[in-house]
Amino acid sequence: MRTRNGESVLARAVRIFEAFTPEEPALTVSEISRRTGLHVATASRLVAELVSYGFLTRDADRRVRIGMRLWELATRASPSLSLRNAAMPFMEGVHDVVGHHVQLGVLDGDEVLFLERLSAPGAVINYTRIAGRLPLHVSSSGLVLLAHGPAELRRRVLDEPLHRYTPDTPATAARLRAVLVEVRRQGFAYCPGYVHPDALAAAAPVRDASGEVVAALAVIVPNEPGATSVVPVVRTAARGLSRALGAPDASRPRQRPGDAEAV
Amino acid sequence: MRTRNGESVLARAVRIFEAFTPEEPALTVSEISRRTGLHVATASRLVAELVSYGFLTRDADRRVRIGMRLWELATRASPSLSLRNAAMPFMEGVHDVVGHHVQLGVLDGDEVLFLERLSAPGAVINYTRIAGRLPLHVSSSGLVLLAHGPAELRRRVLDEPLHRYTPDTPATAARLRAVLVEVRRQGFAYCPGYVHPDALAAAAPVRDASGEVVAALAVIVPNEPGATSVVPVVRTAARGLSRALGAPDASRPRQRPGDAEAV
Repeated sequence: MRTRNGESVLARAVRIFEAFTPEEPALTVSEISRRTGLHVATASRLVAELVSYGFLTRDADRRVRIGMRLWELATRASPSLSLRNAAMPFMEGVHDVVGHHVQLGVLDGDEVLFLERLSAPGAVINYTRIAGRLPLHVSSSGLVLLAHGPAELRRRVLDEPLHRYTPDTPATAARLRAVLVEVRRQGFAYCPGYVHPDALAAAAPVRDASGEVVAALAVIVPNEPGATSVVPVVRTAARGLSRALGAPDASRPRQRPGDAEAV
Repeated sequence: MRTRNGESVLARAVRIFEAFTPEEPALTVSEISRRTGLHVATASRLVAELVSYGFLTRDADRRVRIGMRLWELATRASPSLSLRNAAMPFMEGVHDVVGHHVQLGVLDGDEVLFLERLSAPGAVINYTRIAGRLPLHVSSSGLVLLAHGPAELRRRVLDEPLHRYTPDTPATAARLRAVLVEVRRQGFAYCPGYVHPDALAAAAPVRDASGEVVAALAVIVPNEPGATSVVPVVRTAARGLSRALGAPDASRPRQRPGDAEAV
């Protein structure tokens, strides 16, 4: 079912969904048309159909938003929901003790996708948001996922130019390789000022019943001396969550081919 | 862009998404075909295209699931995310003190849709789940939303047969009408054993800057004498959240045409 220029209707609908961002969650049809490159008439027709399914909604002022029904269908059977639900009590425990930000990230493509974040009022700066992404090399969760991810992913990331957020970002292949070896050896990532000079992140791996790393649990706190005390907190929560997911004894991690030392 | 039998490609894609449920989050293509009534070849082709956009994914064993990308796009710009984020600290506070379940529901169609739920291990029975729904007349959140919702919604719900979950469910129009008047008068819903004999729910309205009720905050606890003590807790949190959303002074609710007393 292709349109004249060879693009499918579904591909166009995907482009419409992609036009909405956290910064601009409400768009007019002409804004959607501009952002997607679709004709206004085409955009208007597709928007009307998606509104009829509840996948988009219209404001009182006719601006279009993501619909509740899309959220509901995407969430209720999402594999991420059960992981997130299992993680919540552990995240709440960390958040009660540490404050600031606690977040849960998974590998998606070559980035970390954040499934959940708990934040205290007045917490330190944090670019993460729920359903937001960060590059793997800069985020503590990303470094954990990269260290334990497929070897070809590491090769690809190490081959690409690495964006330097601050002077402390591991933005060369040699430095990143060394960081990944440390993350594997220590069992956690400790990232002072990698994303922002004022913020320090620490993350630990979350394993499922197969022993595979399926997520990373992280805390973001002010980048100050003494912040190392968050490391045992986040490690304990990540291990507790792993055990809740049926992971084997995490104190004896198995060595597998493709692990970070191999890079 | 209609197919031969007049159904659009988008309508078919919607049916595919709807085939996945919390109980069956992974389906084979032939199961999808059976559930949607689509030809296996059609289902297979649409699934392949949706997989290519990350809207669906395939397991190692070729079963299909909701994709992370669909969740990401549905969540990151969702109007529900900002409400849910604003609600989280209030929900966590209630959860720390009350335990059991704390949940946030919004009106969607003639049902309550739950945006968030925090649950303690070993908490009392609760049929609610995130991105799950309940009828308005049986759930404490639903009763709050119904009491403060449009008059035509109340007329419609009162006209329909009301499912009786327990002997205590308000399942006649007369009883439901009386319950709604009480909810309006008291400023909260108190629902002992409406959904299950062992569970008691209490909910209070959440208002936004316009003063409109946009959500309900609820707690579910064991149905025991003394449970009334949760009422001021949930009311306080719901008012705090309302103030955080910019609501006017909630201690002086405005009387509007179409409020419950009018039914």
